Amino acid sequence: MHDVYQDPLVSRYTDKAMQIIFSDDFKFKTWRRCWIALAEAQLELGLKQITQQMIDEMKSVDVIDYEIAEQKEKEIRHDVMAHVYEFGTHCPAAKGIIHLGATSMFVGCNTDLIQMREALVIIKAGLINTVHNLAQFAEKHKSLVTLGYTHYQPAQPTTVGKRTTLYIQDLLMDLKNIEHAESMIKARGVKGATGTQAAMMELFENDFEKVKKLDMLVSNKLGFESSFPVSGQTYTRKLDTVIVKALAGIAESACKFATDMRMLSNLKVQEEPFEEGQTGSSAMAYKRNPMRCERMTGLSRKLMNIQLDFAHIHSSQWFERTLDDSAIRRMDIPQAFLLANAILKLYQNITSGMVVYPAQVRKHLDEELPFMATEAILMHLAKQGKDRQEMHEIIKYHSVAAGNAVKLEGKRNDLFERLVADGRLGMSRQYLDNLLQEPERFAGAARQQTEEFLEKEVSPVLKKYSELAGKSDFTVSV
Amino acid sequence: MHDVYQDPLVSRYTDKAMQIIFSDDFKFKTWRRCWIALAEAQLELGLKQITQQMIDEMKSVDVIDYEIAEQKEKEIRHDVMAHVYEFGTHCPAAKGIIHLGATSMFVGCNTDLIQMREALVIIKAGLINTVHNLAQFAEKHKSLVTLGYTHYQPAQPTTVGKRTTLYIQDLLMDLKNIEHAESMIKARGVKGATGTQAAMMELFENDFEKVKKLDMLVSNKLGFESSFPVSGQTYTRKLDTVIVKALAGIAESACKFATDMRMLSNLKVQEEPFEEGQTGSSAMAYKRNPMRCERMTGLSRKLMNIQLDFAHIHSSQWFERTLDDSAIRRMDIPQAFLLANAILKLYQNITSGMVVYPAQVRKHLDEELPFMATEAILMHLAKQGKDRQEMHEIIKYHSVAAGNAVKLEGKRNDLFERLVADGRLGMSRQYLDNLLQEPERFAGAARQQTEEFLEKEVSPVLKKYSELAGKSDFTVSV
Amino acid sequence: MHDVYQDPLVSRYTDKAMQIIFSDDFKFKTWRRCWIALAEAQLELGLKQITQQMIDEMKSVDVIDYEIAEQKEKEIRHDVMAHVYEFGTHCPAAKGIIHLGATSMFVGCNTDLIQMREALVIIKAGLINTVHNLAQFAEKHKSLVTLGYTHYQPAQPTTVGKRTTLYIQDLLMDLKNIEHAESMIKARGVKGATGTQAAMMELFENDFEKVKKLDMLVSNKLGFESSFPVSGQTYTRKLDTVIVKALAGIAESACKFATDMRMLSNLKVQEEPFEEGQTGSSAMAYKRNPMRCERMTGLSRKLMNIQLDFAHIHSSQWFERTLDDSAIRRMDIPQAFLLANAILKLYQNITSGMVVYPAQVRKHLDEELPFMATEAILMHLAKQGKDRQEMHEIIKYHSVAAGNAVKLEGKRNDLFERLVADGRLGMSRQYLDNLLQEPERFAGAARQQTEEFLEKEVSPVLKKYSELAGKSDFTVSV
Amino acid sequence: MHDVYQDPLVSRYTDKAMQIIFSDDFKFKTWRRCWIALAEAQLELGLKQITQQMIDEMKSVDVIDYEIAEQKEKEIRHDVMAHVYEFGTHCPAAKGIIHLGATSMFVGCNTDLIQMREALVIIKAGLINTVHNLAQFAEKHKSLVTLGYTHYQPAQPTTVGKRTTLYIQDLLMDLKNIEHAESMIKARGVKGATGTQAAMMELFENDFEKVKKLDMLVSNKLGFESSFPVSGQTYTRKLDTVIVKALAGIAESACKFATDMRMLSNLKVQEEPFEEGQTGSSAMAYKRNPMRCERMTGLSRKLMNIQLDFAHIHSSQWFERTLDDSAIRRMDIPQAFLLANAILKLYQNITSGMVVYPAQVRKHLDEELPFMATEAILMHLAKQGKDRQEMHEIIKYHSVAAGNAVKLEGKRNDLFERLVADGRLGMSRQYLDNLLQEPERFAGAARQQTEEFLEKEVSPVLKKYSELAGKSDFTVSV
Repeated sequence: MHDVYQDPLVSRYTDKAMQIIFSDDFKFKTWRRCWIALAEAQLELGLKQITQQMIDEMKSVDVIDYEIAEQKEKEIRHDVMAHVYEFGTHCPAAKGIIHLGATSMFVGCNTDLIQMREALVIIKAGLINTVHNLAQFAEKHKSLVTLGYTHYQPAQPTTVGKRTTLYIQDLLMDLKNIEHAESMIKARGVKGATGTQAAMMELFENDFEKVKKLDMLVSNKLGFESSFPVSGQTYTRKLDTVIVKALAGIAESACKFATDMRMLSNLKVQEEPFEEGQTGSSAMAYKRNPMRCERMTGLSRKLMNIQLDFAHIHSSQWFERTLDDSAIRRMDIPQAFLLANAILKLYQNITSGMVVYPAQVRKHLDEELPFMATEAILMHLAKQGKDRQEMHEIIKYHSVAAGNAVKLEGKRNDLFERLVADGRLGMSRQYLDNLLQEPERFAGAARQQTEEFLEKEVSPVLKKYSELAGKSDFTVSV
Repeated sequence: MHDVYQDPLVSRYTDKAMQIIFSDDFKFKTWRRCWIALAEAQLELGLKQITQQMIDEMKSVDVIDYEIAEQKEKEIRHDVMAHVYEFGTHCPAAKGIIHLGATSMFVGCNTDLIQMREALVIIKAGLINTVHNLAQFAEKHKSLVTLGYTHYQPAQPTTVGKRTTLYIQDLLMDLKNIEHAESMIKARGVKGATGTQAAMMELFENDFEKVKKLDMLVSNKLGFESSFPVSGQTYTRKLDTVIVKALAGIAESACKFATDMRMLSNLKVQEEPFEEGQTGSSAMAYKRNPMRCERMTGLSRKLMNIQLDFAHIHSSQWFERTLDDSAIRRMDIPQAFLLANAILKLYQNITSGMVVYPAQVRKHLDEELPFMATEAILMHLAKQGKDRQEMHEIIKYHSVAAGNAVKLEGKRNDLFERLVADGRLGMSRQYLDNLLQEPERFAGAARQQTEEFLEKEVSPVLKKYSELAGKSDFTVSV
Repeated sequence: MHDVYQDPLVSRYTDKAMQIIFSDDFKFKTWRRCWIALAEAQLELGLKQITQQMIDEMKSVDVIDYEIAEQKEKEIRHDVMAHVYEFGTHCPAAKGIIHLGATSMFVGCNTDLIQMREALVIIKAGLINTVHNLAQFAEKHKSLVTLGYTHYQPAQPTTVGKRTTLYIQDLLMDLKNIEHAESMIKARGVKGATGTQAAMMELFENDFEKVKKLDMLVSNKLGFESSFPVSGQTYTRKLDTVIVKALAGIAESACKFATDMRMLSNLKVQEEPFEEGQTGSSAMAYKRNPMRCERMTGLSRKLMNIQLDFAHIHSSQWFERTLDDSAIRRMDIPQAFLLANAILKLYQNITSGMVVYPAQVRKHLDEELPFMATEAILMHLAKQGKDRQEMHEIIKYHSVAAGNAVKLEGKRNDLFERLVADGRLGMSRQYLDNLLQEPERFAGAARQQTEEFLEKEVSPVLKKYSELAGKSDFTVSV
Repeated sequence: MHDVYQDPLVSRYTDKAMQIIFSDDFKFKTWRRCWIALAEAQLELGLKQITQQMIDEMKSVDVIDYEIAEQKEKEIRHDVMAHVYEFGTHCPAAKGIIHLGATSMFVGCNTDLIQMREALVIIKAGLINTVHNLAQFAEKHKSLVTLGYTHYQPAQPTTVGKRTTLYIQDLLMDLKNIEHAESMIKARGVKGATGTQAAMMELFENDFEKVKKLDMLVSNKLGFESSFPVSGQTYTRKLDTVIVKALAGIAESACKFATDMRMLSNLKVQEEPFEEGQTGSSAMAYKRNPMRCERMTGLSRKLMNIQLDFAHIHSSQWFERTLDDSAIRRMDIPQAFLLANAILKLYQNITSGMVVYPAQVRKHLDEELPFMATEAILMHLAKQGKDRQEMHEIIKYHSVAAGNAVKLEGKRNDLFERLVADGRLGMSRQYLDNLLQEPERFAGAARQQTEEFLEKEVSPVLKKYSELAGKSDFTVSV
């Protein structure tokens, strides 16, 4: 274990539940589930080779003898046939009818689809619980006025809660993308070597209605409402692209959030929770490094870029199928889901205890409020009928001068003195001072928007997915 | 024009209709449309500064004086304010209220959204017409049996029509992705510099209901059913990712189709239409190069990769907005739509006259049919109760030998002679010869699947979008 | 011009010099240069069809009649043959021998290579001048102690100059990559339709030595020292990947620099130069938005991602050549160079007047110096033989407490009081106060490293490329 | 092992030697190597805390007690300090001076650099042995004339050997890129928390010369000739990009080769070696699927795209360092090298026994030779002074007609009959028949080029790297 490379996605960052879905055990047990569904459906449709006893026998097997399977695979160099053989060693009666009329991709594709379907449930749980955490945070801080930033320069104030709704809105859009992707998942069903169902047509003596029925029965038994209407040897790899693009969307949202958080940490305004005993660094004990956000950023970039693999896989499949999808999907499908899982674990973890420092929030605001007020002053002057562009120029002149005083001389912000002194504006000191008393007046409808957003956009979703609430592990090691 | 670089997307590959959407004219006229909608809504909500006469005045202006705008922009270095000024030169009465309480991104975002909404209509028209062409082709050749290919090696036969359904299925999924993306497009509405609607709250004296109403009225006037519930300075760039991922999906589908076509051309089985007078190459006059498919492949790769730009744009937006999205979106949104347009023009062009050579189809099939028949023979033997794995090994042995005879000695395929001669199989020559008479028996349910697919999957979509049929230009220069 | 999409790379961001290289004029004039070189070499090697008069005639032509060429291209649908024809209309004598024995890619490839070779000179000039600016800035501020940042949290101080050397080092590595790429550029020479030089072997009656000589002569006449030893129809597209990866490296370096600058602007520590008359935004007059750095970031992301196109172009070329490279290279090669040019224009522009605010630098430093000092204190205690890990824990405890006082209560930093009060450390107030007097003691060898770096790493390069100094335009419109 | 996801890169595709380099054992042993080098250098430079006995003690430790390290890491949440502690448990004397004055990245960076340096040796061995195999194949088949393909349409013949030189040329360029990357690898040396060497300046009482000496001594002891002149907390991540871009170049070359091979397999012209006992597929026994080439294609796409991760890692590093590089590099550096290793194992394996079928080669050639001959005929007619463009049109007319006869009616190629019958050409049957006798006359200088390429380009490289010949394992499981 220590002598060869270990994938840190598994050893460090992800849930056991997700790791299991992409394990050998899960895969080979699902293969057997496919074989049983096939035999059952064939029996139901009157195929004489199959008996109920065979099916009962198959269902009763619980162990996988990996040694036998590996031995056989070495010999015949074919993993599906090796596992047909291994399964047969436990099923003397059914041995001859396992995989009857099927091809490798019957188990391969349907298992892939089941894995992704199951994995998406874990992803949705992560999404829902993150949204839940963020919504609580937004509600709590909906009125906490803070500097807005555009160009990462101070801009019109917003509230901490309102800013948080932006992250939530992105995640709700991701959820819609996931739901859209889910709506496109169908079984691959029983389609045969090149998708023509030739072997099943042969078995059922060219009775197309029976063959269609078989396809549907097997799909239903595997938990799908329908199957892809047509396929080559595999289901279309476009489905993979739709799913992974939706997963990558989560990464894109998470990356934006994490990057903001890393800057908020610099500003000492907002921080990820800090674990007791966590060491900043060997040299700098006092540091509270936003390490989970940094990790999220990195993992997100990988997931964002990985979506391109799937675009190239799908677009370069030749005819009914080529195998250049195999090795790369074997790595990339697990990686995509494990990365999404790792990211959402972090996102939940961080949002479960996210810290905000109101004193710091206010400090930054106060330093910039005179500048902030220029927009209101401009509106005020415009209402008085003054020329907006002219007033804009004057205020700009004084703003730049006041800004320079801060930057060049380390002085405090003296903008208001300068404005009062400029007769062209005709401003009273009283008016200006009043402006600063209530910072919330600069935050527009930030509070109201937050309330409305939580009520109209977030609540219905949390309600819809209430069964997933709390169903997600978010312990992370730092 | 000849002295500096010209983007070939514009000069060579795309529709005027798409080029117009991303032109200066369209942009600045849409800015004015936004300003008019804003003033109208402000008037409706009782803002005293605005009069109907001002609005009428604004609506009556038709020309844009680019020289004035450029001159002003040079002076104040702000494109939106320059165009406010320029518009004002035509509107002496409205001059002071144009853009009242708005910020640059009020016109910027809403215009982007309108451009993308309009551009998607052109894209859908291209999709629908391509599906229409492919469906006709599939119907026509639903029974034409052809070699299937897996690993680009001969595999169970399918039909030309059935293979075509695979391309259609991908495009129908793309259409669903486009529709999903469309369902997520909302107006940016009137949200203010950091999304708090502060200026509008100021204008409407903190009446949030009026401010909400304004946002909705303007959105409706611009043709949107609703607006984003929350925003920073811009609408979330996640929307761009959803749209461009859907566009890139078209590229992925087109790339697969085009690559298959390029190999079918090599096989002399299927070809893109060849224009009268087209020259193969200066040296090789006889060649019928699949140049349009090659071009599709290249353009598709670019569009596939460009989707990553949008992932990185969205994920790296800081706080309420940073401007690192500006220059890249200015190039990438037009490029993404122009590329999708160019690809779909080619796709329609090719499918409008796609050629198939039945004599060649049959020639390839006959060369491989004895090998093809081994699956049926195996089923036949399995039905007789013989051990599948053992029979598999025997047939494989002879298949490889027959294959070697072809490859090593250039001999004809003598597989059947070999099988008859092997007593372990107990096959009659008569049984084997019968197998080859009707190639359709190897094509399983390919024909039936095609019929069902066209009826159940394709027809409803073509009907739904019948108004787009024929509304798409697909002349291309080769 | 206003009625269709215009590529902003051309209309906004780049040098005329670069735009010209990828213009029609440059391309077609280079085609003619290739034809003249070919004819000259053929004449020198004794080919009887060619006369000196023909060559003189070809050399005397200066105009391109685009109408004729376009007319002919429409007719025969072959751009090279159309331009052979057009050139011929000016050369009655040479008409029959233009392009003799050559194929399209003779002019196509050699022209591409010449374009890239010329464009790289502009790129190198941009690099060199940026390095020059940064070096001056580093020299000037080599002793200005500033907070270091790791995790974007305060870390051991460095100097403004030392930090600047990190950007320079990246650019010097980019320069090495460019030089490496240049070392791999060779002419495509005269290789024929599939690279076998068949037509030339025919012309020279199978005299391979002459054919080799021809290839070398033409290459030399076109300014190359050698030609690719082997080729298919085109030179290997791997060369494109090497060049564009090197260009993308510049984007990667620039993106890092620009991102740092955007955060330094937030900190009011460092700023890009602000043009007289530049407007922050319509609403917020006082803002000094780092718009050029933001633009650099966006343009850089596009160039970074575009390198992938070239990887896929090369890796998917089939056999001696397929045309799926054509449309995408026609866009991507100019885009890659134009983007690199735009980025370097910005980089030069910014570094030509980059502003630093020492008062702000010191303010940030003072706020964190007590924390900063903990490393020195730890070393000091370790030297006294105390257990590093134990001392680390104690100091960390007090650091976190002091940090919380700042963050939670807005108090000033009281770390030193806390340390003096903890008997386990045995620290004197005097020792601690002394620590803060000279911030440079915390900056280690930052100054010395900067000096050494500028002398040993930068100076030799600037000297080597002194002829490029100042040869680069860096005016940008904001 | 079967219950969670296992990375198939490790379990299936790569060399133990490569897996080891990225193992815990290798990493932590290299950390110790760094600590020993540091202590030795500190001793040599006169630091009194260090004794020779301590160093001997450190050198004598061979085991790593992972349990202790993990226990400690859980407690203090810092992997480097945990391993300092664990190492200390074996070194009672040295315990206090391990890692003296160093930071985590001292071991982190230097170990990364050593891992990559060692891994590149394995990569080069794979490259060299692949080139060796291909060169032997090219030599053997340098005169075997085969159809060239452009647009994947028959084109001027080349030879099997000549085509092979194209793959070799790409690999030789990759090798140059690897050598270039290697030339840029330097030690990170001893640079301190933010690269200022502050702790070492403290230890050596501000003696910069000693600190420089220390940096160099440690670098040399770790096998590097020099160290990066400047760094932040880590060496510049640009180096990673240069290395991985070079690795990805191998993928790009391999992908092109593998794709050609997959089409050559379809043409039954060239095949990867087929292992005794390998099963085509469960259904189609006779198939010889190019599975290794397909796998190469897929793995190559992943490696090609992964290079983008590194571009984004480098470009988004903030200031002296942010940790968003950590998790992604932890996965991507091993993945990049393991993928390159897997690809080169396949490339060697395939080229070690690549099969060519001369009878098939000739069959394809004969089918197209009359078309092929048109170029020669055109040259022939041009030499007679006929108008090239006019002759081109005539021949094209007949070529298309003959091609149609083949495609539409399945007839044999009757082009020559058609040409003889057209009086405008004045061709004798005799002349035409002679053309077909010696296909090598259509292959130009393919043979000579191959010979020259192998002698002048390949031999010197194989000689230079003769010590790597045969030093590479290329068994693969299929």
